[in-house]
Amino acid sequence: MTTASEQAGSLLTELDHVAIAVRDLEAAIAFYETAFGATVTHRETIEADGVSEALLAVAESYVQLLTPTRAGSPVAKYLDAKGEGIHHVGYRVSDCATALAAATASGARAIDPVPRPGSRGTTVAFLHPKTSFGTLIELVQE
Amino acid sequence: MTTASEQAGSLLTELDHVAIAVRDLEAAIAFYETAFGATVTHRETIEADGVSEALLAVAESYVQLLTPTRAGSPVAKYLDAKGEGIHHVGYRVSDCATALAAATASGARAIDPVPRPGSRGTTVAFLHPKTSFGTLIELVQE
Repeated sequence: MTTASEQAGSLLTELDHVAIAVRDLEAAIAFYETAFGATVTHRETIEADGVSEALLAVAESYVQLLTPTRAGSPVAKYLDAKGEGIHHVGYRVSDCATALAAATASGARAIDPVPRPGSRGTTVAFLHPKTSFGTLIELVQE
Repeated sequence: MTTASEQAGSLLTELDHVAIAVRDLEAAIAFYETAFGATVTHRETIEADGVSEALLAVAESYVQLLTPTRAGSPVAKYLDAKGEGIHHVGYRVSDCATALAAATASGARAIDPVPRPGSRGTTVAFLHPKTSFGTLIELVQE
């Protein structure tokens, strides 16, 4: 499906997810379930990143709740430094390598120089917040 | 249109927007335009909130870039305390008052006790991050 934003020439086809770092994943899930009636549609632990996640569907997007599986992991460090809260935003793209090349050609700094596997079988790359006005951005190819 | 998440009983019908606080709105817009080919679809200054915003469409959602119009406004204080970055997340709901009542009944603390006008003609209410695992949440009725 070609979206309106793709027709307008944007590389971003969907606001894929908002990622929220939390200390107690089950308590956070319970909050979204009881406060909003949201439903967990996927759970996954990514050992390489030291993170366990739960995805709650909102239309074509997700709320991604993240909690660290070990001290010293990136999300553990984030919680230690900043506390719970919005950790990054993921934008869906048709081709991660193409979007990554376009972003870095425009001055964005890549954390991942080449796309790598993400959760739920995606291909992802992160852009550094220093060149993105303080926002950690993930490019997500399904 | 009834969305899949509504069918599942969720009050959240769309990830309406991710709001990003920035110091230089024009520079931030230029980044999203050049890095991703995104397009500004709406601009508005909300004097009551001391904020000027630009919306960039991503499918049915928006990136909302925010910058303060005066010192001491909530977004100005956020920038002073935390620097640029993701400020809040907005979820679209069919009825703001209903969603607000459901959330507060589940223990969420309302910043706005009753819905109020938001940008682009919406009706909105904010939930306090203290009861939402560190996330400032906006409920948005179009």
